[in-house]
Amino acid sequence: MAINWNTVTGPEVMVDSRKAKRNITRMIDKAQSAGVDLRPHFKTHQSPLLGKWFGPIEQTPIAVSSVPMARTFADAGWRDILIAIPLNPRQLPAYNRLAQELTLGLTIEHADALETIARIQHPVDVYVEVDAGYGRTGMNWRDPQNIYAVLEQAFNMPQVRHLGLLLHAGNSYSMRGTHGIAKIHEESLGRLAELLADCPIPRDALRVSVGDTPTCSRMDAFPGADEIRPGNYVFYDWQQQRIGACEWSDIALALACPVIARYPERDEVIIHGGAVHFSKDFVTVDGKPQYGQVMRITSDGWGGPIEGAFVHGLSQEHGKVKVPPALLKELKLGDLLVIVPAHSCLVMDASKGECTLIR
Amino acid sequence: MAINWNTVTGPEVMVDSRKAKRNITRMIDKAQSAGVDLRPHFKTHQSPLLGKWFGPIEQTPIAVSSVPMARTFADAGWRDILIAIPLNPRQLPAYNRLAQELTLGLTIEHADALETIARIQHPVDVYVEVDAGYGRTGMNWRDPQNIYAVLEQAFNMPQVRHLGLLLHAGNSYSMRGTHGIAKIHEESLGRLAELLADCPIPRDALRVSVGDTPTCSRMDAFPGADEIRPGNYVFYDWQQQRIGACEWSDIALALACPVIARYPERDEVIIHGGAVHFSKDFVTVDGKPQYGQVMRITSDGWGGPIEGAFVHGLSQEHGKVKVPPALLKELKLGDLLVIVPAHSCLVMDASKGECTLIR
Repeated sequence: MAINWNTVTGPEVMVDSRKAKRNITRMIDKAQSAGVDLRPHFKTHQSPLLGKWFGPIEQTPIAVSSVPMARTFADAGWRDILIAIPLNPRQLPAYNRLAQELTLGLTIEHADALETIARIQHPVDVYVEVDAGYGRTGMNWRDPQNIYAVLEQAFNMPQVRHLGLLLHAGNSYSMRGTHGIAKIHEESLGRLAELLADCPIPRDALRVSVGDTPTCSRMDAFPGADEIRPGNYVFYDWQQQRIGACEWSDIALALACPVIARYPERDEVIIHGGAVHFSKDFVTVDGKPQYGQVMRITSDGWGGPIEGAFVHGLSQEHGKVKVPPALLKELKLGDLLVIVPAHSCLVMDASKGECTLIR
Repeated sequence: MAINWNTVTGPEVMVDSRKAKRNITRMIDKAQSAGVDLRPHFKTHQSPLLGKWFGPIEQTPIAVSSVPMARTFADAGWRDILIAIPLNPRQLPAYNRLAQELTLGLTIEHADALETIARIQHPVDVYVEVDAGYGRTGMNWRDPQNIYAVLEQAFNMPQVRHLGLLLHAGNSYSMRGTHGIAKIHEESLGRLAELLADCPIPRDALRVSVGDTPTCSRMDAFPGADEIRPGNYVFYDWQQQRIGACEWSDIALALACPVIARYPERDEVIIHGGAVHFSKDFVTVDGKPQYGQVMRITSDGWGGPIEGAFVHGLSQEHGKVKVPPALLKELKLGDLLVIVPAHSCLVMDASKGECTLIR
């Protein structure tokens, strides 16, 4: 369906539903062929409306990264929610309420966290996070005895319904191309296999959850894993395109921003669209941060990238956009630029899940 | 009043109302001594509740940087609102509604924008933005004839109630110390004086609005200006402290974040508190980005900075915090860190104005 661009006042988050649904279907097919379950990470869109695209609400397990997000999706009807960020003891009352209502998964990375688990009055699933090289959170894969000790302690707790291992190979984000993604993938899953080889917990009593968008998009097999847990793939973004996790044509989210000033002498226009819309996340091109790539506008959305047209500066509400002279000459005050952001998860968070669906 | 830190689940924006009110009072006093009006920029806090601290709602002129913000404060009772970002023709219907309800100021930086002004059915104030060296928006001060032409055209339009010039010397943000801030201040106001010297519009028919937090905080005189328009000063932040626009003890906003993982071998803890709370704005220390400075917790808020304790990495919900070994040893899972962010405006935008008031 053709878009009526005249009704867009901007800045506005545009979601191409055809592309997003195609991305969702591809990942469902991928998981099925690989023989793993799929637990999409809903931190990317944070929208119950879009959440319905992933499958029947009551049968779709999901991951989130905060208690407020878990609350949002619990209230909207989801019944299997893993909070994939280390447990915060201050949230005990919220965990208790959620565990009463649904299948709640919690993530821990230290024996201390079991003190909080012990105070939950309903069964919960507990995932022990393993750091297989990313260096953010998780128990170090190099110290398997520590990990086994926590697993055994948890295994014997009456509150713990299912026990799991959780991995996030976020170091795949620093790679370029399928070869680099494969390297991280093999390294993490290799370390996981080592860990599982001597694990005192029976393998079939452990649920192993892995996943990040680059590896889940480009790899076909997930040996050792029971489920994959990617999130960003529903929209993708410029960072994923740079990593090599998607093509430009897969990106399902862009910001429509009106031109509010033109400076031909600086090869630049200013848009209404700033740090509060794009976030200040960026990709690095020729050593410099770029916050968004301008796309060709089409009657029903957007096409490919316009070479040399990108956001190179952001203040709170203003964006500075480099524009090739030929395009700049055509641009009038109030014309829209459609821009793929560096990081779509942060854009959706900034808009609190509000977006305009197209197609 | 002592804070009950036990009720904080975090991440939570904490506003020290005593400090914020002191910052507000100082700026009111400063404007009065300097003989200029004060139009606080409300983009920093975006909160009608905090807005009341600046003076009686109906008598306090304010600046905002978007139509939705103007709408929020219009609905809450403010009656003189300047939208200090170049006009967006797509917002004509919104401008019309606002202009009917209150004293609306609009900002333009090209003759083209007058076509939109001509279609507004109520009187509006029109500010022509001048770029006196910052290089973001505004008509170049080096081309005074262009500026005069737009001023004269606007002056003769029936919709235009008051005519103004608007300056934002955002280049003060790249300075360090009062001397550097003074340099930018004198340069911008010098260029403004040159512009005003040959201006065809009578001086008393022009309202001149200037202002940014560094110059308004550290300078005492604003020759050539009728009003100042700072925003960030209500809270200040780490960037302002680095610029030299405030002291640590002036900063009235911090994030309380629980520790969710500890890595003594990396001199690091992980907090719940990520890019969606801090924004990815940073200060550069020793060539590296830092997103927040950890402060000493006191019974009624926070004291000075803890040396060597700062946020050096952010993902969506996780923050990586470097912590000195002695402090790290004391920290337990769930302990709070109170952290001054790099940029308080973006933190308040991320929380949509939600914050916990202390003192």
